Amino acid sequence: MSKEITSRQQDYSQWYNDLVIKGGLADYSAVRGCMVIKPYGYAIWEKIREQLDKMFKETGHVNAYFPLFIPKSFLSREAAHVEGFAKECAVVTHYRLKNSPDGKGIIVDPDAKLEEELIVRPTSETIIWHSYKEWIQSYRDLPLLINQWANVVRWEMRTRLFLRTTEFLWQEGHTAHATKQEAIEEAERMLEVYATFVEDFMAIPVVKGIKTASERFAGAEETYCIEAMMQDGKALQAGTSHFLGQNFAKAFDVKFQTKEGTQEYVWATSWGVSTRLIGALLMAHSDDDGLILPPKLAPTQVVIVPIYKNDEQLSAISQKVESLIKELKAKGISVKYDDNDKYKPGWKFAEYEMKGYPVRIAIGPRDMESNQVEVARRDTKEKMTLSFDNLADRIATLLDEIQINIYARAKTFKEQMTTRVENFKEFVEVLDTKGGYVSAHFDGTAETEEKIKNETKSTIRCIPLDNPQEAGVCVYSGKPSAQRVLFARSY
Amino acid sequence: MSKEITSRQQDYSQWYNDLVIKGGLADYSAVRGCMVIKPYGYAIWEKIREQLDKMFKETGHVNAYFPLFIPKSFLSREAAHVEGFAKECAVVTHYRLKNSPDGKGIIVDPDAKLEEELIVRPTSETIIWHSYKEWIQSYRDLPLLINQWANVVRWEMRTRLFLRTTEFLWQEGHTAHATKQEAIEEAERMLEVYATFVEDFMAIPVVKGIKTASERFAGAEETYCIEAMMQDGKALQAGTSHFLGQNFAKAFDVKFQTKEGTQEYVWATSWGVSTRLIGALLMAHSDDDGLILPPKLAPTQVVIVPIYKNDEQLSAISQKVESLIKELKAKGISVKYDDNDKYKPGWKFAEYEMKGYPVRIAIGPRDMESNQVEVARRDTKEKMTLSFDNLADRIATLLDEIQINIYARAKTFKEQMTTRVENFKEFVEVLDTKGGYVSAHFDGTAETEEKIKNETKSTIRCIPLDNPQEAGVCVYSGKPSAQRVLFARSY
Repeated sequence: MSKEITSRQQDYSQWYNDLVIKGGLADYSAVRGCMVIKPYGYAIWEKIREQLDKMFKETGHVNAYFPLFIPKSFLSREAAHVEGFAKECAVVTHYRLKNSPDGKGIIVDPDAKLEEELIVRPTSETIIWHSYKEWIQSYRDLPLLINQWANVVRWEMRTRLFLRTTEFLWQEGHTAHATKQEAIEEAERMLEVYATFVEDFMAIPVVKGIKTASERFAGAEETYCIEAMMQDGKALQAGTSHFLGQNFAKAFDVKFQTKEGTQEYVWATSWGVSTRLIGALLMAHSDDDGLILPPKLAPTQVVIVPIYKNDEQLSAISQKVESLIKELKAKGISVKYDDNDKYKPGWKFAEYEMKGYPVRIAIGPRDMESNQVEVARRDTKEKMTLSFDNLADRIATLLDEIQINIYARAKTFKEQMTTRVENFKEFVEVLDTKGGYVSAHFDGTAETEEKIKNETKSTIRCIPLDNPQEAGVCVYSGKPSAQRVLFARSY
Repeated sequence: MSKEITSRQQDYSQWYNDLVIKGGLADYSAVRGCMVIKPYGYAIWEKIREQLDKMFKETGHVNAYFPLFIPKSFLSREAAHVEGFAKECAVVTHYRLKNSPDGKGIIVDPDAKLEEELIVRPTSETIIWHSYKEWIQSYRDLPLLINQWANVVRWEMRTRLFLRTTEFLWQEGHTAHATKQEAIEEAERMLEVYATFVEDFMAIPVVKGIKTASERFAGAEETYCIEAMMQDGKALQAGTSHFLGQNFAKAFDVKFQTKEGTQEYVWATSWGVSTRLIGALLMAHSDDDGLILPPKLAPTQVVIVPIYKNDEQLSAISQKVESLIKELKAKGISVKYDDNDKYKPGWKFAEYEMKGYPVRIAIGPRDMESNQVEVARRDTKEKMTLSFDNLADRIATLLDEIQINIYARAKTFKEQMTTRVENFKEFVEVLDTKGGYVSAHFDGTAETEEKIKNETKSTIRCIPLDNPQEAGVCVYSGKPSAQRVLFARSY
């Protein structure tokens, strides 16, 4: 096939790029670091967005939309935030172009310089809290539970399709609360929503935990995260939820009147996931033949390919599958009947395998005679012959099985790729040979964390929630440690 | 009430602003010309988007996402396009900030100047056709029917919430076809989709037509449009669909191999509607007490307000309405039960009236005894007492009635506001006293069009589709005319 992709063994990184490009998910663009999300990739994002949006609304959140641009001075208002985000930003300095005096094209009009430069939002805490100051006066206005679906820009030096792009799509929740306790509960609730989504829909097991101070979001008091394990043994941060304390309320002077009549600063959270999830989805499940998509997020769950030599055969097949298609749709199963005569069945088979359609049904004249079809499942590549009778039920069950199987496989892998080590020699050895999570005792200091990062290129992915407390010694410093933490190399 | 709004009579423009601000739809932001779309306004946008997206998909389109930034040189590729769009743009010139040497805040890093400036997309034809060059090789790749939901930026000098903002949300369809005929059919099909949506869902009657050459989209060969009449007698362009000929294919060198093996330029369309539709929705139906929303686009169609003096009464009412809420939801009706004890019923009534909830149900202890409720419809402000029996059915019917009534009212108004005139004196008189559409004979020249615009501030809104051909003389020049066209002052 012309679309053959590089094997993981041969070049994991090229394999990933092949999945994205040849699978028709995304493309490079004319703008450095920015990608085009192609229809198939965007359809996956729509599935992700639809489900998350539902879960956000079920937990009481509403959507809104805040400006793309942030006045430069806003970024400086919160001290830690500016350090984290003010560096690699797209800066708008002018608002007009004009014809070049030499008649060759257009130039920036020097007379149209902005008084204050505008930053294309890298994240929206500052512009949102500027509005919250107007919106929040009284305890009656709280909690404020707002989410935004938006594009953001971070001028990344090294980009990779979906995983790290200059512009990406995401959602960012920004909530305001009357008490510290409520805000912490909200941050934890949203972490739980993310974990449920990634495990139940993306079929990827996660580790829930908190970040160390040095890995925290710029401006947060606590960063909760979910981490996922990729097939090359690197971890990927799949979502974060931040307890922001009163930092942004103080930076933007947002106080509210309590029931008792006192004035207090508001407590805040923010939380987000992005198109990066698509990268995680691809890397967690796919194989050397292409994508493997969990049925719950596959844009099309079932494809039916007719095999025919003439119009008469095609018409008989089309008639036969019509009721099957109806039954599948009635069960909420998305199905495509591909009778496009511009392509041969062999081309179609390869294409749907590459794109990870969970179930493929092929039906030819001989199948018609014997009242059966050939069903191929993408996850195991098993083929089976099934009767037309009760076929829709069988397919529905099969889709459930595939969802479960993909998750189980990823879970086994994640467990295999989690190694407890007792000393630094083992630590390095595991990282270099096997990869994955290294569960190790650590003295809890930023100094040790930094040294381990410099020497091994691994970082503390998280301190797992409900981490067992067990006395030990730090694998690096030999100092006392109260618990193990998870290290890994990561995306 | 503290939320009283200016009457239309007193100050139409202030009335509109009051609707938006006091109705909680949008807010001004810290960035000149950019608005914040608040949760209630965004919920309306979600309803609009959801329905349009469904209609786009039903007509064979898929969504994708292209970069926010456009290299400056791309805009110059299509001669007419650059004239129309290259002027008032946000220009990104740098990609990094740094700490100010004087320690006061952050400054743009002069070392991080882009080699080529990037324009924040005002519309995406150029960046998209750059991709299409890679995506389209053969007739097999056509038609390409892609839509994008995105934010765009046009540096407007005079802005108004929803109607004209520097940043706005929209969808832009960009399609590629093998033949001219197919592309024209596509442009017309999408105009029809827009017209159906605006009439059936927004309950606003439209005039479908084509623009004159001087009002055409920059780069189009034909611009189709739908025009809507607002309560102050000004027209509002609610959506446009463009037949782009081969202009962008030539500018970006996009050719395809035909079945016969020849190479030909691709034919194109683009079409879009934006958050401006929310402005139209507000101005078409609302009254001096606030919004009137058509049930099909109201975020919440029914609100139930309990009237109680103590917990016991509230609990009895809550129990009683529980099954009603379930029945309404089962019918696909969105309903809110507002038992929030932070506010009094009077405050709630005013709030829901202001926000245009189509149906309000109030129920107190006496209603409980007589097994009935008070139902108020927002469009006519009628109140009625209805029995609890079959109430859900009655409400469903009522919502349909309201949708029909709002549309009928707007249709009558539009007809009243369309005046045939036979000479220029009448033309000016009608514009100055009554407003609305002026249907007048016109000689078809850009010169006359320009003069009428300068003298009357009215423009040709469109030449209606299926316009009757009738001989006459131009009201301005006295030259022969083959048909009437619609003039109006407009937003």
